Amino acid sequence: MGKIANRYLEVLPFAIREEGFHSDRSSVSESIFALANEYMGVRGTFEEGVSSLDSLRGSYFNGIYDYALEPTPIHYKGIVQRTHFMVNAMDWLKVTLIIDQEQIDLGKKAPHNFVRNLDLKSGLLTREFSYTLDNGKEVKLCFSRFLSMNHAHRGYQKISIRANQDAEVSLTFHLDSNVLMWKSDCYFTDQDHFDANKISGLGVKTLTTEGRVYSVMEIDSPYEYEFVHTNREVKRLYHFHLKGNEQAVFTRYVVNNIAKQGEKTFGELKKEAIQELEQAVNEGYDLALTDNSLFWSRVFDQRDIEIFGDEVNQQGIRYTIFQLTQTYHGVDPSDNIGAKGLTGEAYSGHAFWDSETYCLPFYLFNEPEAARNLLLFRYHTLKQAKARAKDLDCEGACYPIATLNGEEGCNLWQHASTQFQPSTGVAYGIFHYVNVTKDIDFIFDYGMEMLLEITKFLLTRGQWNSRHTHFGFYGVMGPDEFQLMVNHNTYTNYMAKATFDYTLNLLNEFRTQEKIIKLCKRLEINEELITRIKEASAKMLILFDSTTNLFEQHLGFYDLPHIDPDSIPVTDFPLYSHWSYDRIYRNDLIKQPDVLMFMFLYSSRFSLVEKKANYDFYEPKTIHESSLSPSVHSIFASEIGYKQAALDFFGFATRMDLDDYNRNTNEGLHVTSIAASWMNIVYGFAGLRSDGEHLALNPHLPTYWQGYKFHLLYRNKRLVITINSAGVTIDSLDDKKVTIVIYGQNYEVGKHFVLPLQYEEE
Amino acid sequence: MGKIANRYLEVLPFAIREEGFHSDRSSVSESIFALANEYMGVRGTFEEGVSSLDSLRGSYFNGIYDYALEPTPIHYKGIVQRTHFMVNAMDWLKVTLIIDQEQIDLGKKAPHNFVRNLDLKSGLLTREFSYTLDNGKEVKLCFSRFLSMNHAHRGYQKISIRANQDAEVSLTFHLDSNVLMWKSDCYFTDQDHFDANKISGLGVKTLTTEGRVYSVMEIDSPYEYEFVHTNREVKRLYHFHLKGNEQAVFTRYVVNNIAKQGEKTFGELKKEAIQELEQAVNEGYDLALTDNSLFWSRVFDQRDIEIFGDEVNQQGIRYTIFQLTQTYHGVDPSDNIGAKGLTGEAYSGHAFWDSETYCLPFYLFNEPEAARNLLLFRYHTLKQAKARAKDLDCEGACYPIATLNGEEGCNLWQHASTQFQPSTGVAYGIFHYVNVTKDIDFIFDYGMEMLLEITKFLLTRGQWNSRHTHFGFYGVMGPDEFQLMVNHNTYTNYMAKATFDYTLNLLNEFRTQEKIIKLCKRLEINEELITRIKEASAKMLILFDSTTNLFEQHLGFYDLPHIDPDSIPVTDFPLYSHWSYDRIYRNDLIKQPDVLMFMFLYSSRFSLVEKKANYDFYEPKTIHESSLSPSVHSIFASEIGYKQAALDFFGFATRMDLDDYNRNTNEGLHVTSIAASWMNIVYGFAGLRSDGEHLALNPHLPTYWQGYKFHLLYRNKRLVITINSAGVTIDSLDDKKVTIVIYGQNYEVGKHFVLPLQYEEE
Repeated sequence: MGKIANRYLEVLPFAIREEGFHSDRSSVSESIFALANEYMGVRGTFEEGVSSLDSLRGSYFNGIYDYALEPTPIHYKGIVQRTHFMVNAMDWLKVTLIIDQEQIDLGKKAPHNFVRNLDLKSGLLTREFSYTLDNGKEVKLCFSRFLSMNHAHRGYQKISIRANQDAEVSLTFHLDSNVLMWKSDCYFTDQDHFDANKISGLGVKTLTTEGRVYSVMEIDSPYEYEFVHTNREVKRLYHFHLKGNEQAVFTRYVVNNIAKQGEKTFGELKKEAIQELEQAVNEGYDLALTDNSLFWSRVFDQRDIEIFGDEVNQQGIRYTIFQLTQTYHGVDPSDNIGAKGLTGEAYSGHAFWDSETYCLPFYLFNEPEAARNLLLFRYHTLKQAKARAKDLDCEGACYPIATLNGEEGCNLWQHASTQFQPSTGVAYGIFHYVNVTKDIDFIFDYGMEMLLEITKFLLTRGQWNSRHTHFGFYGVMGPDEFQLMVNHNTYTNYMAKATFDYTLNLLNEFRTQEKIIKLCKRLEINEELITRIKEASAKMLILFDSTTNLFEQHLGFYDLPHIDPDSIPVTDFPLYSHWSYDRIYRNDLIKQPDVLMFMFLYSSRFSLVEKKANYDFYEPKTIHESSLSPSVHSIFASEIGYKQAALDFFGFATRMDLDDYNRNTNEGLHVTSIAASWMNIVYGFAGLRSDGEHLALNPHLPTYWQGYKFHLLYRNKRLVITINSAGVTIDSLDDKKVTIVIYGQNYEVGKHFVLPLQYEEE
Repeated sequence: MGKIANRYLEVLPFAIREEGFHSDRSSVSESIFALANEYMGVRGTFEEGVSSLDSLRGSYFNGIYDYALEPTPIHYKGIVQRTHFMVNAMDWLKVTLIIDQEQIDLGKKAPHNFVRNLDLKSGLLTREFSYTLDNGKEVKLCFSRFLSMNHAHRGYQKISIRANQDAEVSLTFHLDSNVLMWKSDCYFTDQDHFDANKISGLGVKTLTTEGRVYSVMEIDSPYEYEFVHTNREVKRLYHFHLKGNEQAVFTRYVVNNIAKQGEKTFGELKKEAIQELEQAVNEGYDLALTDNSLFWSRVFDQRDIEIFGDEVNQQGIRYTIFQLTQTYHGVDPSDNIGAKGLTGEAYSGHAFWDSETYCLPFYLFNEPEAARNLLLFRYHTLKQAKARAKDLDCEGACYPIATLNGEEGCNLWQHASTQFQPSTGVAYGIFHYVNVTKDIDFIFDYGMEMLLEITKFLLTRGQWNSRHTHFGFYGVMGPDEFQLMVNHNTYTNYMAKATFDYTLNLLNEFRTQEKIIKLCKRLEINEELITRIKEASAKMLILFDSTTNLFEQHLGFYDLPHIDPDSIPVTDFPLYSHWSYDRIYRNDLIKQPDVLMFMFLYSSRFSLVEKKANYDFYEPKTIHESSLSPSVHSIFASEIGYKQAALDFFGFATRMDLDDYNRNTNEGLHVTSIAASWMNIVYGFAGLRSDGEHLALNPHLPTYWQGYKFHLLYRNKRLVITINSAGVTIDSLDDKKVTIVIYGQNYEVGKHFVLPLQYEEE
């Protein structure tokens, strides 16, 4: 099952660069060159359009969603009847370019000297190429764009045109909401438009929700324009004579102003947008770009991972940091992180349990406020999670498998009604965040309420066995999605018990706190309930055998028919596409870590012997048919000392999308999966552990690296950690001391700290 | 969960009679008064239509089906992408009746002296009533209809009209294919029509299949008509002046000629239909009705069950016999028995495993040729079953959960990919048929091939456990549909082992037979395969504990959370409608017999002690949310000696539809379920067992019956069995002896045989 790189981009330290147009990678490039700023995102499509090539024009706004037109055909209680999805929205970069009556279209005619460049230090995407017209004239075109990171509503576009002889140019700038979702339906209705004082605007609304988008634009150019409005679209048409070898430059300023749930009228949206646009135009394109460069400088000053002696992964990890930061940096607690970020329509734009388990650490150690906001998304959607629990005939709050707005967005009962990783993941996220930051107020204001509601859900979804001797979960699916409707999945039982215990401990610790007393009263937390939680925790069935040190993945797992993954023909992968659906679920194949996953999350609770035993047992059964799988295995391999395996699993982590390893980058970037590549380095090679009392490190140096360097913001202290042949060096700007466990020893780390590498060679 | 009778029909020995129009039962009556003759069926709708009342006009032809317009939204291998269904077709009974410009419509105005009568001794359905026109005139109307049982294409309709004053009558006779399936889509296209030589006709074709229906009609009346053709419809319009107190009578002769798979052209269908219609008209209405009476006399002479001292069940069981015979009497091996027969659209007209397990015995002991043809349906659809096995990544033949044409018609993977009762049921049906009839040729010509293909399927769908110590089925659902994706369901394992063993035994017994040698060569049955079958059978995991005599329903069943059915509020039933979908599947509630089901099918293999132990354990967990459940429990209760329980479970068996116990008779009759009421008497009270070497009886007399009498055709000997206070009397017309085990003793039964009742009083 070796995955093979499909590399066509230049390897550069701070840029993604395509030299020569790779028309066969057209839609892959659209994903890779996607821009976003948490508020909105655009795929790297060509402004002028492209015919006859694979392309998905995509423009998305975080939180602008709609419901499917058709209900789910299976009607039972607890099965989601109408799914929701992030809707492909206003195309505010679109132009139509006609020179001497010939439409510029790279789908019809190949360009020369094509260069596309994404500068990670400014977020500027440029595309330059030459184009020979049918009449023989040579045209040189340059398109640039960026999204403001500081003023998230603002987008910038610059187009320059030069021909080697006089030419007639027709250039149209669109604000176009005639965009199709899944290339089939448009989900917008036209609500308002205007053209006044050099500003043109269009306001549209989603079909069945109250999502509103008002986009306004001003174009800096010396030419006159004609304004046209058609349904769901406004355009500015420019016709002009371009002299040979002279350059025409157009700078488009756009402000997109949205209301996710109709909280603002179109009048308000328009007024705000015009004000902001005027400000943007006053400040100008260059200043905005400088501003962006400052933003990205700060990001890389504080978040960069440097890898010495490995340019390929160096680029990969920087691209990861760039994309994670683009997608989410925690400005709005009503945003979450979609599996594909804002770069495509696959997974419907939904956020999964990846947010708390795979993405949270990146923010936790770089910008704790963003981590906090990510958790607040769950607090603000408690209402929906409580409604979902009720749908499932349970109490408390059940967090959805897939969501944009807090509602369950997955209409497959076999996932949505049986997988509780999101709920236990939120509880874990709260624990993890508070454990690292010591932000106890978060517990008082938000965390405790979420924990209590999740606990109520788990307590009512869990069941006692017939003899009432143990408690646990029946009819569930753990993280390993190859085992369906099993009983006593150990991940689920373990995580539920951890949730119960953490909640009980906090209740006990803070039982005299006014806020907690009030909360318990409001949520009707009484002694009888607490006793029930304690009993369920005490009798939670955890299938552990102390003679083998093995956790059984679920009751009966050991006796399942065995299939050796190496016996499966390569052409059978992915199994979901080649095996009969039921066949996937009746053997001991594992899709992604399940036992290993809770051992990773609560790493400090398990001995190296236990980790090794379970890794040795489960890894050979795992086929990694989830992009979330290899990094966790690499982290275990690092800890156990399987250095080669650690490198092998790290293999494509940082470049999953740049090299299109899964052959589906065209659908959008694996945003939450690439978060795992950050963990792979920091938790894997550097051996960070953050679930214990103190931060712990256990660094080693992959054989082919000269060294690597990363940052941790820990208890308000910025640490720069360098691992190289000289040892582990931890630098900080201040003298303040923090306790860090390194190679199992506690150290007080201040301004500068050095320790030799202790990791044994294999 | 007591079910309550909703009785509104007269209790009569050989008729179903409604006195006074029960408009609130409109669609229930449409089902109850449905007519059929295996070839076609019509619901008991009013010929003249009815507005503003619940009604489903339904006319069906066995084998005329179409595919759903929309594909299943979940796309995985093995999940059916397009379901098929019996399509609502040509309405050949429809009329429009206008008198003095007022349309007769019982939905708008109540009739007087309304009587509807279905005569079970002729199959004639009549409806008489008086109707007061807005202008005060009184009209008396009588509608009669029957379907010929001997010439299945023919349908007859008679309408008589009398008014107490002169009136202007407009009467239109339609052949109308503008019928809606599921009240939403019409699945027919107009292909041909004509009106010549007093015969009018219409030919239509299904939308996506090659189902063809050609209907022709001739109307006997003294009046002139006008012919009209519109899309998918032809009409004859009669306008005439009716003198006061004179009667106008119209007799419509219809021939419906179908081609299920386009095997005849419309020209051929038309020609044949006209010929047959001419013959029908020549013979006339009265002769045809006499013919039908002869048919039904023979049926009741040979199939009747008489119950002395219980008029209610007497009517019920006769209605059952009437409906079973109407629906299927085995004239065409391409027909099967839909769960709702030809009386409605629920369950899409599909046949299930009920055919072999619930319906077959009725035919086996009344008309073995019909039982044989029912099994031949499976032989003729082997090709589809083999394709289905391939879809499931298996070899051999997998029979569908639900089908009309042999293809799998169920698009829910959790049933269609996990329930193998149809396949093991077909194997059981072959065993049962051959065991009773000794028709060994059936094995040579059809049975062996089916058994081998089913065996191949079971062998490749079954799996060895990880240690290769036992074989069985993983990820399955047994007959109890409340346990989903379980391992080692004992029903499935037991029935598969029985299939393996029966197949191996036959192979061994007939290994020198030319036909079997040829067959094995064609199917590539070699020693290696036979060894594999033997190993799988030998190591099949059957979860039996000889200390408790209990079979565990599946691996892990005993440890499931317990729910006492009595603790469930009545308003929660049916659970499918009130419980979250996943909740149904994670406790020890049982929907319908599972362990008890294989113990019923192979009854002679189990001791009374074992039967009692398993009944006592499983019955209290069973909520009978399938209409197939109570009768099997009644049969066990009879054998064990729980006489009151036997009566309680028998309770509504014979009158499930007549009294609308499940409140869904409006959707169609529970045709296959009411077959269980025949078994309930014959296998339950009379204790018939037919899976052993000899036929066995173990009769008792339910306390409130004076006696009962039924027929068995066994090895070409017609037995009339009477059970009353005088004992068990077995009469036959001939001296030929057959061995019957009665109360455990072998007897040679000849012309007349009497034995005292031995059943102990409770």
